Amino acid sequence: MTALPFPFPVVTWDDQEVVLIDQTLLPERLTWRRCGSVTSLCLAIGELAVRGAPAIGVAAGFGLALSWRLAMEKESHITGILARFQKDREQLSATRPTAVNLFWALDRLGSLAEQLVAHGKTADEIAIDLLVEAQAVLDEDVAMCRSLGMHGQQLLPDFATVLTHCNAGGLATGGYGTAVGVVFAAKESGKTISVFADETRPLLQGSRLTAWELQNQGIEVTVICDSAAASIMSQGKVDAVITGADRIAANGDVANKIGTYPLAVLANRHGVPFYVAAPGSTFDAATKTGDDIAIELRDPHEVHEFHGGRATPEGVGAWNPAFDVTPNDLISAIITEHGVVRPPYRENLAKVWK
Amino acid sequence: MTALPFPFPVVTWDDQEVVLIDQTLLPERLTWRRCGSVTSLCLAIGELAVRGAPAIGVAAGFGLALSWRLAMEKESHITGILARFQKDREQLSATRPTAVNLFWALDRLGSLAEQLVAHGKTADEIAIDLLVEAQAVLDEDVAMCRSLGMHGQQLLPDFATVLTHCNAGGLATGGYGTAVGVVFAAKESGKTISVFADETRPLLQGSRLTAWELQNQGIEVTVICDSAAASIMSQGKVDAVITGADRIAANGDVANKIGTYPLAVLANRHGVPFYVAAPGSTFDAATKTGDDIAIELRDPHEVHEFHGGRATPEGVGAWNPAFDVTPNDLISAIITEHGVVRPPYRENLAKVWK
Repeated sequence: MTALPFPFPVVTWDDQEVVLIDQTLLPERLTWRRCGSVTSLCLAIGELAVRGAPAIGVAAGFGLALSWRLAMEKESHITGILARFQKDREQLSATRPTAVNLFWALDRLGSLAEQLVAHGKTADEIAIDLLVEAQAVLDEDVAMCRSLGMHGQQLLPDFATVLTHCNAGGLATGGYGTAVGVVFAAKESGKTISVFADETRPLLQGSRLTAWELQNQGIEVTVICDSAAASIMSQGKVDAVITGADRIAANGDVANKIGTYPLAVLANRHGVPFYVAAPGSTFDAATKTGDDIAIELRDPHEVHEFHGGRATPEGVGAWNPAFDVTPNDLISAIITEHGVVRPPYRENLAKVWK
Repeated sequence: MTALPFPFPVVTWDDQEVVLIDQTLLPERLTWRRCGSVTSLCLAIGELAVRGAPAIGVAAGFGLALSWRLAMEKESHITGILARFQKDREQLSATRPTAVNLFWALDRLGSLAEQLVAHGKTADEIAIDLLVEAQAVLDEDVAMCRSLGMHGQQLLPDFATVLTHCNAGGLATGGYGTAVGVVFAAKESGKTISVFADETRPLLQGSRLTAWELQNQGIEVTVICDSAAASIMSQGKVDAVITGADRIAANGDVANKIGTYPLAVLANRHGVPFYVAAPGSTFDAATKTGDDIAIELRDPHEVHEFHGGRATPEGVGAWNPAFDVTPNDLISAIITEHGVVRPPYRENLAKVWK
């Protein structure tokens, strides 16, 4: 396996196209998916060829830069270009209606375009500014993840074994990762690090994506069934559990991929530190506690089926929550782009994420 | 779906053949596998068409009854019949070298045949006695499971939701089950009962087998990913967790399917009683504590693959322990064929399983 450049080129701009690592084909094949139109990019987002809120945000940014350029080929007046651009913006916003970073990136580039038009910039000038802005969305994400990773890696010993869940990795972000970013940062800092990756049923992001990206960067990784994490901890083989977060409430309760909460309980029992690695975009000060977080129930077919086969009998139900909530008292620290935050979280998170 | 007779006809004798429910084809198809020779029965055991130590024991018993009858067709003298019978016994013993009940059943029928020969019984008389003995192995297993189930169901409220792991069910035994047998006994006792079945990675015995047999008997069952059990418990929806046991140490530590120990930790945290249902054959007085139980590591391919697809990248390792050990202090009670045993287990288990 050839190591890719790192941070991973998860979403990049090349020769007037948005280029993605097609994550639906990993880990079997590393394939580049080139999107030369906004429609093809929307399709790629919808099919989860690119997934993870930060990565989707980056893709959306480049998508709007692309939109402007394509519109310039079809329209001679700036109002016509802007109208096409706004239509593409709507199309992009409909791809993943719950991805916060998607709307954030669309607003950022959308507002910029509107301002530049209002200020009388030419279409050519705006095309350049939008591409620079899209690249900035990517670069800022990488810088933020690297900062988070560098803060987080200080928590690890020189020879460390980390257990992680799902894929809070380079593939979910601009290329560096959050929870897995801490692992990459530890390696960059000269530490010797190995990882146990929960396979993470039902969609197996751990086996498919986390294992792939760690292997790609030459970091030793061992996949385990989610139910084997307790045994590994009881054998004293885990120095730290690190997961990502989908949403962090004001009091530090964390909603993350189903299976995170039991890991926290088990880490607590075995005296293993349990860390959550997440940037400010996941913090929701308006959500007081984890009890206020609605848990998305996903299609039971994700539990029933896998690789085209059916595991459960026809007619049997399945309960398939996407997330669970880990109460703040089980979390040893929250690793952010501004540093490592310790309890009490209500006060200390508000300080770093104003 | 047509309800089968209950206890399930997992292994039966019919018209000079051993007839099995082919568990490799569940839950997609309910198919009967007829074994008219010892070789075909050995093949069925090897392919896991019949699995679960008690069910294998029953199959082995009928296999030796069959062996004697087939040998009678080929040999005119009793020494020739016995020689063929002993050869078949060896063939059967090589199928699943770690299944305790297999050897126990082979010894039981093998010794009986030797004694009857020594006492001058005719081949015809011995053929009948062996079939009666094989049927007794089955009937005793069913009676034992029913007794265990009836003791266990007293622990459940009239409207109960049980969470179980793997398949300690009718299909693993002579047809009634141990952990799932408690559920069947509760239903027989007029209780209203529903079940959450952990899918039980990597081999999915929960989704494939436990869900199938509960559905077949009209008991409401919902499959969950193993990692969702914590969420279900935290919502207060589980009245009891009941699992089987592969081996119970003298102090009450329990080795069982990987994923049992974390369930016990989580049940403990949520104030949900955690019960182990197991017959005396699982008790190993010579094993002092769970620390003395060697954990079988199984083929990593079980984690890598599923339904012919591959989840992990080539070259990535997987750690695949078959069992974990639940310490006795997390176990609310052990449900046995002689009654419900409470701590202290060292004293109280020794009383019921002398």
